Amino acid sequence: MNKKPSLVKGTRDFGPAVMLRRKYILNSIESVFKKYGFMPLETPAMEQLETLTGKYGEEGDKLLFKILNSGDFVSNVTDDIWNSKISQKIVSQISEKGLRYDLTVPLARYVAMNRNEISFPFKRYQVQPVWRADKPQRGRYREFWQCDADIIGSDSMMNEADVLTIASEVFNLLGINIRIHLNNRKILEAIAQKFKIENNFQNFVILIDKLDKVDFEILKSEFIELGLSETQIEELKVLLQKGKFNLDSISNIGSELENIQAAEAGCKELREVLSFCESSEIFNSIYIDLSLARGLDYYTGCIIEIKAIDVKMGSISGGGRYDNLTGVFGLPDVSGIGISFGIDRIYDVMSELNLFENLAQTEVKAMFCHLDEKGRLFNYSLGSELRREGLAIEVYPDMKKLAKQFEYAEKKGIPYVIITGEEELLTGQLSFKNLVTKAQGKIDKQQLADFLKSNS
Amino acid sequence: MNKKPSLVKGTRDFGPAVMLRRKYILNSIESVFKKYGFMPLETPAMEQLETLTGKYGEEGDKLLFKILNSGDFVSNVTDDIWNSKISQKIVSQISEKGLRYDLTVPLARYVAMNRNEISFPFKRYQVQPVWRADKPQRGRYREFWQCDADIIGSDSMMNEADVLTIASEVFNLLGINIRIHLNNRKILEAIAQKFKIENNFQNFVILIDKLDKVDFEILKSEFIELGLSETQIEELKVLLQKGKFNLDSISNIGSELENIQAAEAGCKELREVLSFCESSEIFNSIYIDLSLARGLDYYTGCIIEIKAIDVKMGSISGGGRYDNLTGVFGLPDVSGIGISFGIDRIYDVMSELNLFENLAQTEVKAMFCHLDEKGRLFNYSLGSELRREGLAIEVYPDMKKLAKQFEYAEKKGIPYVIITGEEELLTGQLSFKNLVTKAQGKIDKQQLADFLKSNS
Repeated sequence: MNKKPSLVKGTRDFGPAVMLRRKYILNSIESVFKKYGFMPLETPAMEQLETLTGKYGEEGDKLLFKILNSGDFVSNVTDDIWNSKISQKIVSQISEKGLRYDLTVPLARYVAMNRNEISFPFKRYQVQPVWRADKPQRGRYREFWQCDADIIGSDSMMNEADVLTIASEVFNLLGINIRIHLNNRKILEAIAQKFKIENNFQNFVILIDKLDKVDFEILKSEFIELGLSETQIEELKVLLQKGKFNLDSISNIGSELENIQAAEAGCKELREVLSFCESSEIFNSIYIDLSLARGLDYYTGCIIEIKAIDVKMGSISGGGRYDNLTGVFGLPDVSGIGISFGIDRIYDVMSELNLFENLAQTEVKAMFCHLDEKGRLFNYSLGSELRREGLAIEVYPDMKKLAKQFEYAEKKGIPYVIITGEEELLTGQLSFKNLVTKAQGKIDKQQLADFLKSNS
Repeated sequence: MNKKPSLVKGTRDFGPAVMLRRKYILNSIESVFKKYGFMPLETPAMEQLETLTGKYGEEGDKLLFKILNSGDFVSNVTDDIWNSKISQKIVSQISEKGLRYDLTVPLARYVAMNRNEISFPFKRYQVQPVWRADKPQRGRYREFWQCDADIIGSDSMMNEADVLTIASEVFNLLGINIRIHLNNRKILEAIAQKFKIENNFQNFVILIDKLDKVDFEILKSEFIELGLSETQIEELKVLLQKGKFNLDSISNIGSELENIQAAEAGCKELREVLSFCESSEIFNSIYIDLSLARGLDYYTGCIIEIKAIDVKMGSISGGGRYDNLTGVFGLPDVSGIGISFGIDRIYDVMSELNLFENLAQTEVKAMFCHLDEKGRLFNYSLGSELRREGLAIEVYPDMKKLAKQFEYAEKKGIPYVIITGEEELLTGQLSFKNLVTKAQGKIDKQQLADFLKSNS
């Protein structure tokens, strides 16, 4: 072949520098998940297509990556269907498996399949890639990572409070200032009822969700199509733009919505969530935002979106409560709530804010350089000794010029190089150089471990 | 739908208990990789089919999972080809992408594509799943994890020594006693030359590799087919069963192989590797084993396989040197060496040896239980306080009986439960119970953090 290889469109390699940053983000998030008692789960990349289809809407079904059946895949297709040569008819005959589209459906499948072993409330986190056959564009990939935490089997609003606090703690750890947008789908339901468009609720939610990116005026015609009059649209506008509410003024929402039951229920839930958060400092980051809708079908209660204050960017985390996620897999009436962190966006926000600046490029404290074969053997055994002391150490392996050896250490961000020549071997006094500060000197072989431990 | 969902055959969910153990293994391996200056890399699950095909032999090509092109996939197929209804002809027309089959080919692709940015020797580690459309059976999965470390762009035998030391350090950390089998493909080449079957070298290697599982007598007819006489087979038997050599006796191999150049070269490399390891304690775990062959085509120098001493099981780690891995992607003459850890087998070995026994089931130190709403709110804010002190804490969210709350904590392996009833709220003296030792008592709210930190 000997051809220039390429990546699949919309996928990425993560080289060492990027990986270190991604790992830093993921480890930070994971450390918070653990502090709240969440346990790890991993599910297979491939799921039965029947597990996946119908869960993400018609558009979602189209975006599923499908895996060709192994072996002689045509042999199961009747000539009739084959000769039709229609992709839609043939696909189900030659493909039974698909790639994971998100982490929520696999979670629901896992819970349904393992209901008898799980002790509820089941608090799991999951960090795995998902695949969507979307048109790749800036910031949108065909393979990307989701990082989710969910609590399944508890309808306590304490879980909502936990989810908010977890998000706050994560972003505090990463150094990102955030605003938490909080709403409740029940209030949106009440609004739909007020305007008598409750039969069109899904489309109403999708429209409200668009308001985040598109101006109200532009969407006006779509609201009219949905059944709203000009006056109602004005009313809606005022209602949604109420913006920030505090704990007390939530009560007003109820009366503005003419005491529709769903509004009362939604407000009650919000009040309860806030009562848990009241004494914590996250309380000041929470904005009740009636214009928050979230795109996904399955939310039924509180919904959450988190935005970075200092960078113009969509939400970097989001989630909400769902009342019947596992119903489709034969396990009805299990309420849950989840939160998802957008790793790619968080990465971009942190790059823009220079928050990776102090992240070490490597854990290696020193690299041993040699001038000859004798020095190389000496370095190997000294390097082994230092590693036994717990230090991360490299020993340059090849017979190359010193400048070449230094260059390698420098590129890798290793702070110290230790040079062993004839003189050094004789006296046991090793030459060192700090590649950052350019400081250099001699150090006794015996003191090297302590020196490196204290100087890094 | 409401149907019982199922997993794709040959794939697995990893629930919390299994995940904790897998993470323990992977974190241990990763910590050693880092100590030697290896850097993380991740590549996409999907690769271009042309990157994958032809790299794993004919059998391997058949085991590639192929992804159906998105959209109207039939539209690109000419009627001629379509009407043939022959899977082999059609597959390349409707599928351009495949799932990663191992981590080595993606590494070679990455190195070839990023040759100008990488500073060599490139030391990378990679822990990701791979997929093979193999017939699933006990211990063989269609999705499994590989955990590889490779050094690319250095032909120093110090790297071989590093790889051996890394393996030794990993298994020491995990508590598994090992024997390291070491050989060199050049010596096998010399043996093939001695018997004048060098043109059949690949098949010779595959046969030798089988000797690990199948008795010599059973394979006799295959060796004859390869061109060996009965006498030569006896000679081969004696040669391969030499078993353990020490540093000095390696020289004898050369003379036994009538000083064929390849044998000399192989022995020289082995001697050099051992000279690096001589002063270390791993020296005693190394067995020069001429019957070690390794199945893969691309090895050209030292080859390594590691076995657990105390459990009957195939190799739990293996690797070797290859001289031209990136050649097929247009970057020739780059030598490298790699080692791979078999996570599933290591998991099984550790289970059999009860090495997970002391692994905590959770990091959570305590769970707060409540008797009423007031206690629940109190617990929430006290739980938050303790988390701020860095402790992992759960607060039971639902209004359930105390027995139910205890049961949850017990199942999750949380050591302490703290109970807050009316009296406790009044006095600030909280009741605690250790669910393992059954010890119980009262503790002042102020001292709880210190108590939990010191008692776990």
